[in-house]
Amino acid sequence: MIETVSISSTSNSKIKDLLSLKEKSRVRKKEGLFVLEGARELQIALGANYQIQQLFFNPKIISVDEVQNLVQSTKINNCFEVSDEVYAKIAYRSTTEGIIAICKAKEHDLSKLKIEKKNPLILIAEAPEKPGNIGALLRTADAAGVDAVIIANPKTDLYNPNTIRASLGCLFSVQTYTASTSNTIEFLKANHINFYAATLQDSTEYTDIDFRGPSAIVVGTEATGLEEQWRKESTKNIIIPMRGAIDSMNVSVAASVLIFEAVRQRN
Amino acid sequence: MIETVSISSTSNSKIKDLLSLKEKSRVRKKEGLFVLEGARELQIALGANYQIQQLFFNPKIISVDEVQNLVQSTKINNCFEVSDEVYAKIAYRSTTEGIIAICKAKEHDLSKLKIEKKNPLILIAEAPEKPGNIGALLRTADAAGVDAVIIANPKTDLYNPNTIRASLGCLFSVQTYTASTSNTIEFLKANHINFYAATLQDSTEYTDIDFRGPSAIVVGTEATGLEEQWRKESTKNIIIPMRGAIDSMNVSVAASVLIFEAVRQRN
Repeated sequence: MIETVSISSTSNSKIKDLLSLKEKSRVRKKEGLFVLEGARELQIALGANYQIQQLFFNPKIISVDEVQNLVQSTKINNCFEVSDEVYAKIAYRSTTEGIIAICKAKEHDLSKLKIEKKNPLILIAEAPEKPGNIGALLRTADAAGVDAVIIANPKTDLYNPNTIRASLGCLFSVQTYTASTSNTIEFLKANHINFYAATLQDSTEYTDIDFRGPSAIVVGTEATGLEEQWRKESTKNIIIPMRGAIDSMNVSVAASVLIFEAVRQRN
Repeated sequence: MIETVSISSTSNSKIKDLLSLKEKSRVRKKEGLFVLEGARELQIALGANYQIQQLFFNPKIISVDEVQNLVQSTKINNCFEVSDEVYAKIAYRSTTEGIIAICKAKEHDLSKLKIEKKNPLILIAEAPEKPGNIGALLRTADAAGVDAVIIANPKTDLYNPNTIRASLGCLFSVQTYTASTSNTIEFLKANHINFYAATLQDSTEYTDIDFRGPSAIVVGTEATGLEEQWRKESTKNIIIPMRGAIDSMNVSVAASVLIFEAVRQRN
């Protein structure tokens, strides 16, 4: 059984530490920890062997039995019952599922990615800025069952709470890596993975590409597109033809259309 | 040439009227007018024969010549130069393109939609709540070149400023209609259009559907899905198989994957 300690003051040092982790990328990096909110997110993280350091719950929203049920046999050493006031302070919204955890970050450097499948499918996003977009990309990657996501030239740390929230926990279910654009291209070449850069210049319609071999689909930001390096070195540049008044797509929408076409071809 | 009048006070009655139109669906409906912001949005609206009633611009951001160039030969009877302070008050952000128009709304009732093509492709969204999602759906519809979008059981008016902004003006380039769910289904049947409801029950994988005939793709909200009526009466229920930890997709992402598969088959 979980043993709990009560916290009713928002000035408790554990609460201050949690807020600091939530708000500051620098603190997350230094401590190697991050904050996760929500029952489903916690379940997905536990399923992916993330380690919980501290667990906070509001017993008015979620009972200790439900918490026990969520964490199953995972041993939780530091479990805190928090008051409404404390929960309102630490939660995204006071109406969320009543549970927040501090977890140990994993290592996401691309050097850790070992390609074991013959025909991997990888989604690469260069320098996405909005946590909402990164979260949406991770949801797409999860739904499509891609083998890995690589964030090239990352602009934020992966454990930004808004990214985790927008991903609905898919940050934990999807193998996610970060690297510079140069290192990512080197990695793809070394592993003989074809890579297709979504660009507007010199491009082939995406439906004319054979994605059945080892493939990576590379998308840039809506505002600035991809670095020239991608266009120059890609196996092919690909385009989703635009048939209307505007000439751009939201990055997560474009990535979904491309990735699901690859999945369709592979089935 | 455009003749302009200066407005420097935020309490000017024209400014108050504009804000009231922006903020209140009720006023938009009563007046048959709406507010549009941005140069590209204005161009798309003019290209779709929307009529401008009043034009407001900040000469520090956009010159009268640029405004003239934007509206081309369209006669503008009420054109106002506004001060920084007034523009900051009426614009979404004071850094946007410096131009805001009050335009005449069009009629969007589904009874106005006449099907002229042999094999139309229609996107239907039931009761989407978030303006951001409606805007994203309209962008997808524009990019894919669908023949019409139908919002069934609408929850907001189409001219909500957040919808217009999220659509990047695609509300004007895409033929958009509204109707109750029952009337929409009646319409589809009367026009012999196959309709495919994206649901989780009794569904066929979307890639197994032949979308080359007259087709409508129907999506619901992420939270509540589609009304049972759709599932019961649809030509087929369709599903995008989920291969990961979570079992739902963002509605605009799902709609894009489905619509672009239909477009692929048709080419």
